[in-house]
Amino acid sequence: MALSSETIAKFSRVSTATLTTQLFKRGLRNVFIQDVRRMSAASGNLVGEAFTLRYIPAREDLDQLSVFENPEHPQRKAVETVPPCQVLVMDCRRDARAASGGNILLMRLKVRGVAGVVTDGGLRDSEAIGKMDFPVYGAGGSAPLNLAIHHAVDLNVPIGCGGVAVFPGDVIVGDGEGVVVIPRHLAESVAGDALEQDMLEQFVLLEIEKGRALPGTYPPNADTLARYRAWREKRDSS
Amino acid sequence: MALSSETIAKFSRVSTATLTTQLFKRGLRNVFIQDVRRMSAASGNLVGEAFTLRYIPAREDLDQLSVFENPEHPQRKAVETVPPCQVLVMDCRRDARAASGGNILLMRLKVRGVAGVVTDGGLRDSEAIGKMDFPVYGAGGSAPLNLAIHHAVDLNVPIGCGGVAVFPGDVIVGDGEGVVVIPRHLAESVAGDALEQDMLEQFVLLEIEKGRALPGTYPPNADTLARYRAWREKRDSS
Amino acid sequence: MALSSETIAKFSRVSTATLTTQLFKRGLRNVFIQDVRRMSAASGNLVGEAFTLRYIPAREDLDQLSVFENPEHPQRKAVETVPPCQVLVMDCRRDARAASGGNILLMRLKVRGVAGVVTDGGLRDSEAIGKMDFPVYGAGGSAPLNLAIHHAVDLNVPIGCGGVAVFPGDVIVGDGEGVVVIPRHLAESVAGDALEQDMLEQFVLLEIEKGRALPGTYPPNADTLARYRAWREKRDSS
Amino acid sequence: MALSSETIAKFSRVSTATLTTQLFKRGLRNVFIQDVRRMSAASGNLVGEAFTLRYIPAREDLDQLSVFENPEHPQRKAVETVPPCQVLVMDCRRDARAASGGNILLMRLKVRGVAGVVTDGGLRDSEAIGKMDFPVYGAGGSAPLNLAIHHAVDLNVPIGCGGVAVFPGDVIVGDGEGVVVIPRHLAESVAGDALEQDMLEQFVLLEIEKGRALPGTYPPNADTLARYRAWREKRDSS
Amino acid sequence: MALSSETIAKFSRVSTATLTTQLFKRGLRNVFIQDVRRMSAASGNLVGEAFTLRYIPAREDLDQLSVFENPEHPQRKAVETVPPCQVLVMDCRRDARAASGGNILLMRLKVRGVAGVVTDGGLRDSEAIGKMDFPVYGAGGSAPLNLAIHHAVDLNVPIGCGGVAVFPGDVIVGDGEGVVVIPRHLAESVAGDALEQDMLEQFVLLEIEKGRALPGTYPPNADTLARYRAWREKRDSS
Amino acid sequence: MALSSETIAKFSRVSTATLTTQLFKRGLRNVFIQDVRRMSAASGNLVGEAFTLRYIPAREDLDQLSVFENPEHPQRKAVETVPPCQVLVMDCRRDARAASGGNILLMRLKVRGVAGVVTDGGLRDSEAIGKMDFPVYGAGGSAPLNLAIHHAVDLNVPIGCGGVAVFPGDVIVGDGEGVVVIPRHLAESVAGDALEQDMLEQFVLLEIEKGRALPGTYPPNADTLARYRAWREKRDSS
Repeated sequence: MALSSETIAKFSRVSTATLTTQLFKRGLRNVFIQDVRRMSAASGNLVGEAFTLRYIPAREDLDQLSVFENPEHPQRKAVETVPPCQVLVMDCRRDARAASGGNILLMRLKVRGVAGVVTDGGLRDSEAIGKMDFPVYGAGGSAPLNLAIHHAVDLNVPIGCGGVAVFPGDVIVGDGEGVVVIPRHLAESVAGDALEQDMLEQFVLLEIEKGRALPGTYPPNADTLARYRAWREKRDSS
Repeated sequence: MALSSETIAKFSRVSTATLTTQLFKRGLRNVFIQDVRRMSAASGNLVGEAFTLRYIPAREDLDQLSVFENPEHPQRKAVETVPPCQVLVMDCRRDARAASGGNILLMRLKVRGVAGVVTDGGLRDSEAIGKMDFPVYGAGGSAPLNLAIHHAVDLNVPIGCGGVAVFPGDVIVGDGEGVVVIPRHLAESVAGDALEQDMLEQFVLLEIEKGRALPGTYPPNADTLARYRAWREKRDSS
Repeated sequence: MALSSETIAKFSRVSTATLTTQLFKRGLRNVFIQDVRRMSAASGNLVGEAFTLRYIPAREDLDQLSVFENPEHPQRKAVETVPPCQVLVMDCRRDARAASGGNILLMRLKVRGVAGVVTDGGLRDSEAIGKMDFPVYGAGGSAPLNLAIHHAVDLNVPIGCGGVAVFPGDVIVGDGEGVVVIPRHLAESVAGDALEQDMLEQFVLLEIEKGRALPGTYPPNADTLARYRAWREKRDSS
Repeated sequence: MALSSETIAKFSRVSTATLTTQLFKRGLRNVFIQDVRRMSAASGNLVGEAFTLRYIPAREDLDQLSVFENPEHPQRKAVETVPPCQVLVMDCRRDARAASGGNILLMRLKVRGVAGVVTDGGLRDSEAIGKMDFPVYGAGGSAPLNLAIHHAVDLNVPIGCGGVAVFPGDVIVGDGEGVVVIPRHLAESVAGDALEQDMLEQFVLLEIEKGRALPGTYPPNADTLARYRAWREKRDSS
Repeated sequence: MALSSETIAKFSRVSTATLTTQLFKRGLRNVFIQDVRRMSAASGNLVGEAFTLRYIPAREDLDQLSVFENPEHPQRKAVETVPPCQVLVMDCRRDARAASGGNILLMRLKVRGVAGVVTDGGLRDSEAIGKMDFPVYGAGGSAPLNLAIHHAVDLNVPIGCGGVAVFPGDVIVGDGEGVVVIPRHLAESVAGDALEQDMLEQFVLLEIEKGRALPGTYPPNADTLARYRAWREKRDSS
Repeated sequence: MALSSETIAKFSRVSTATLTTQLFKRGLRNVFIQDVRRMSAASGNLVGEAFTLRYIPAREDLDQLSVFENPEHPQRKAVETVPPCQVLVMDCRRDARAASGGNILLMRLKVRGVAGVVTDGGLRDSEAIGKMDFPVYGAGGSAPLNLAIHHAVDLNVPIGCGGVAVFPGDVIVGDGEGVVVIPRHLAESVAGDALEQDMLEQFVLLEIEKGRALPGTYPPNADTLARYRAWREKRDSS
């Protein structure tokens, strides 16, 4: 079952920091993709279900330029088959010495309505990517083509990305800080609670700015919570 | 004895590069906090005495969200007790897989008049931090809350930060390049000599821009030094 | 024999990504200097032949500030002797804990007409470097002077830089993504083929933006190539 | 309260592998000290409560050979004050470029009746250590004296060692594979369950050697458990 | 088609060093599994076709001890289904913080007639493994059970192991130095040429021991080759 | 001037640990070659002057097997030209993914009367090396031939090895712990003082074994020194 538009809307409004707290509450400590950053000009959150592509180390006799003449090459096939509104997540074994894609493939994904891209490898054409209005996360600019280091091997299997398990269908949320992986079965509950937490923390931040001390404010005691509810009511009714 | 305002003023005008040279002259080669960068919108130098917070690896049974209900939790207590004009320096064992703080705690520190923050761990809410006019140095944006990896354990003890020894009271100076640690007993002498060196190097740079060669100019010979003194007199009297 | 101005002009117009593909076609997979990025405000490509400077680890008794009084110190001599239009490439053993230079030396290189600088060590005064209109690539800002970690030892010998072999005279090309090393004997052929590839890929990108799928477009089939030739003729004649 | 001799006896008979499983069952996943190995000729398990020594990075002006003339130097004081039957655990920030001790200090610890030593730094005189009948675990032989890299700073505070939290009084168990840290409050329960698990796994291993397949044997089903109980009864009564 | 017994016999007599040279001649430079060593008492070469098991990072809600009650758990299923005379090769993403197996599973593999095991993760019960007469290669002893870090996910797909691509059916050869991966289609040709090379190098070593200089001997010139042929004839006929 | 036989004899009797202390006293903190261990069956100390060989990263078009047909190839030339009683020290940029030599070259060096070999790269044929009675230090067994990763480039220039500066003629001393580099001009003084220190520490160890506490014994006070002198006189006269 696809994510509901309500859930997507909630994920669009919360930070990855808040999401890690909600997942921590549920016993999950390793949910933030490490050593990956937003490389494009997109603002706003990346939200979508994961569609995966897996690479293993390259082998010189297999990884020749001619492989791209075959439309079934897994990298090229991934770009053509990841469904709209999903996120292409690539497992490059955290090795950024070569690219896992470049601006032509990213443009194709954008045109196809894909939600965005996450890779723990490098990306080439990073200057052009830096100007794209399309959510792209990676380990940094790296000119060498993927064949120099990576061999694309299969689609939509469970992978590791930046040290985190990613199963096809897991929810991927990215903001300016990075990318969180939310197990599919927790998506609705996490989205709701995260939105609540984010609103409360907005209020807490305002209180702190006004000069309140941490004790009683963060985490909030009953008094702070009462003020929060008043603030929120006022805000919702305005 | 607190740093004099003259010394603080001097440190505010010199670069961390110059400070490392002055410390090198005094036999100290390991004074630059490694793998840490300015993460906020502050310009100008961070200057202040170190107040420290130490983390060890987290333990799942101890590091639960409920710990923050205790105002004596060392991280929260640090934020409330670091004296104004001092710098909170955190030892996260150079591990940036989780945050050592976020924008609410940083806002509290700013409101309290603390000089700034240095951590060799990550910081969450890095997009918001990026807009704060408050000096914040860390190993990068990292969404997971500190409890996922770090256990706050004590305040104002000697620590390591980015591979450098930091004793409470040492002088911390940060600029756009990074952060230098100056042993407290050397602060006045280093501040004075660094300011002299910085002014001389400004002059040297002008000379180099005009086309002079390095020999005789950098380092300066007697002739260059004479011209420097003339330039400086003129400048001071204008 | 110096590079022809035609070859230089071609290298000025192609991306490092394209160059790695051309070198890959010729059997060279390890040509992109790793962990180095553009640190200055220069735009456009860095192009020039490599002139090298080699460092080994520092030794406390040898690496004292007084060494700079000797104009024959290899670092200082390198700055004064690298020929105009060539690129100073430094081997710091990929260790960025200290600088391999700062803004005074870089200014001297700029004034002398040197094409640019590449180092796999750090650079100090990185805020000032960030504003220089001179191509500078390095492993990041690092305040400590070179003597703290590095001992300059000889000029214009083959070196490693960022994991890549660099021979004096090899062609160095840098863009916003990083730096590629082109063996001297391949320079002309790579420059020509890279320019062709870059133009074709510009056309492919336009086609993809218009909605064409990858198969038949990237890599291009006969039909796409025909359209490409028409596009290019039209463009060249306009 | 000191560990009972029964608990110590149990820990002496179980493997660190089994202990990690028991701690995993209790929600603790990070309990094995990483990158540390047995460096001495001791056989049998190291068992004892942790007494800690903490190092921060060295500072050249503080860390001179003369410091050892002061019997209050924390490293030397630790060696003289760790109680008999306890384990000296050292936090060297996982940096083995220098030693955290050598054979003279280890001999003193042995003579004093200390249970053993664990460090995530190096140890010097490793050839001599290799012949000592005293449990010593470290990151490997490293000749440089501690002052070159490490500054001993305090005793018996919570530390990190090999990426694991160690609180004074935690139980340290080492075998030929490495070292596990057991939180003090779990010691008795873990010891008992681990001994049970170890005995069961001895039986399972015998069954596997005889040719049984994994399903039903490992983990054991009711039938295997029945055979296990028979085997154990027979063994206990013999 | 299975490997012929002749080919297996040849691989049993050559070193991994020689095999890397033969693969280098065929354009393959990345064939030696990095950071893996023989951990058991087996002598002689490991030779067999690869059967693979892939792990991704663990997820706390999925990786509970109860998973082993399911005989379809991929790790347990792998142990029961790898065919006799093949080699179980495991992809642990080069992460040895936890085990990928222990002595019970290895005993089962041995009893089943499997040729041996290679993993780029850790192995637990390493003391017992050290005494097993069964070829086991891994990244070292590591007590924590696999569930702490690794999630077993599928069988007999292409994997990376120690930075090298491994396809099911590739030939795995291990000696006291480590493990080489030979693409299946090259196995016969590599085995033959390697055996020739190894014999020649035995002769060269004897010559060098007698005092011959490298030039003309290694690589051998016509004269040395003539002497080699004589030596070999004599040896073969004796 | 060659090392005197007296100095060589002294270096043969002291530990690398003691040598690092003597160099520390002279202001040198970075003298122990990191990540290198004795790989052969030699016992006793390696002592000799350094003769160096430098590698840079390999380049596929240059590093073909045919290069060894040229007796001027730097690796082969080094093996034939390092003078007897000197030590061949190789700079492999601390990269052990490939070998920097194997048993044939080592045998040639042994036959030629070279004192030993130190490399911060790998060595192939490590099983055979493990049985050689010839001092060999390296970063571990690594089957791939040097051409896969390393390009030999020049002889007897200053190099880095394991993070330490090595100048031709520096004294290399290796024991079971590792290798220390002693600047040539300090050799005589360090040898003498180290021998004194080693003898004193032998006595201290005996005292500690007898039950003396550290204070007053290590470092020794006047009383301990008096007993030491008596012990030594007795020993020397026996």
